[in-house]
Amino acid sequence: MSKRGRFITLEGGEGVGKSTNVAFVETWLQERGIEVVRTREPGGTPRAEAIRGLLLDPSFDEPLHSDAELLLMFAARAQHLAQKIVPALERGAWVICDRFTDATFAYQGGGRGIETARIAQLEQFVQKGLSPDLTLLLDMSPEAAKERLEGRLRDQQTQRDRFEQEQIAFFEAVRRAYLERAAAAPQRFAIIDAGRALDHVQASLAQALEERVALWQ
Amino acid sequence: MSKRGRFITLEGGEGVGKSTNVAFVETWLQERGIEVVRTREPGGTPRAEAIRGLLLDPSFDEPLHSDAELLLMFAARAQHLAQKIVPALERGAWVICDRFTDATFAYQGGGRGIETARIAQLEQFVQKGLSPDLTLLLDMSPEAAKERLEGRLRDQQTQRDRFEQEQIAFFEAVRRAYLERAAAAPQRFAIIDAGRALDHVQASLAQALEERVALWQ
Repeated sequence: MSKRGRFITLEGGEGVGKSTNVAFVETWLQERGIEVVRTREPGGTPRAEAIRGLLLDPSFDEPLHSDAELLLMFAARAQHLAQKIVPALERGAWVICDRFTDATFAYQGGGRGIETARIAQLEQFVQKGLSPDLTLLLDMSPEAAKERLEGRLRDQQTQRDRFEQEQIAFFEAVRRAYLERAAAAPQRFAIIDAGRALDHVQASLAQALEERVALWQ
Repeated sequence: MSKRGRFITLEGGEGVGKSTNVAFVETWLQERGIEVVRTREPGGTPRAEAIRGLLLDPSFDEPLHSDAELLLMFAARAQHLAQKIVPALERGAWVICDRFTDATFAYQGGGRGIETARIAQLEQFVQKGLSPDLTLLLDMSPEAAKERLEGRLRDQQTQRDRFEQEQIAFFEAVRRAYLERAAAAPQRFAIIDAGRALDHVQASLAQALEERVALWQ
């Protein structure tokens, strides 16, 4: 009999090492024989990635209104859920997603000051109760993350996108909002101290996964 | 002392002559010394036009989920209101908009079967009570509109966009939804029989405008 898969999200601010650690979680699960669908938000399907393109495009001369940004986020999410996440979970695959709705509460809520109740209204509209089974929050101070990120940008000579141009105070508000979300849902969240060396971070991730997988099986 | 401008929308299905008649309304108002901002939905600002591009793009291989479509519509609308419509009204200009939220109720509600209450929820979220002062509904049978449209497409050799590829039954549902909206708000709506010759249609538009402008001044 088929069993619904588990939905795991990885969250955190810029520069905390999400990409590296999403790959780590994917491999960890695959080594245990689990079919994994790795994806990201905003994006994850061709149409949702096109919406992501609009959200991150720094070339517009026109400010993006906070409500428009929020609605674009949830438009991409509705598409991603319908086309990729829900079908994967229903066939028994596990989904590991680089950012999800907690990021909307952290960035649009904590960062841009949109009322939490307004975000929750759209969350209910789109997700109708669906929420991650486990959220791995990579937590570190914005100052340390900024240093890490600037090193990376110097190396890669990449242009920063709109979000990466935000100020430290913004990222502090994002971090606070993430930690408040985690405090309000301690069963769902595992807070990982991402300021340590990578092998320590990944040992913590592995431990959080071990505990959950044991509970779920 | 400055006076808030009036917000006029033009609505109707495909092929009813909206573009021609939006221009007629604009000229009619300008001839009376009114500053007019002419715009359209989805779109009206660079970012909102980019969202329109995503909505109408027929090249995606992936179906657009109805919730995602609805959220994109309202994302474009939030941007359009904040960047163009509200500032214009506040400085005393009149805004004439080719389609607005009634089109969402007609197309996404009537056409695609999204619950009216779900659309109304996003309407309230984005518009917070703002609604047009006058809506000119160009009404005609979808069969007649289709004939007119096919003539135009043959002439221009244009590629049809996604909406224009929809079927007659869809446009009948759209028309019904428009007429129900008009019946529910008779003070706001003027229903114009768009199946007649253009000079008759425009005489009706002029009459509807005369009546309102007299009331408002």
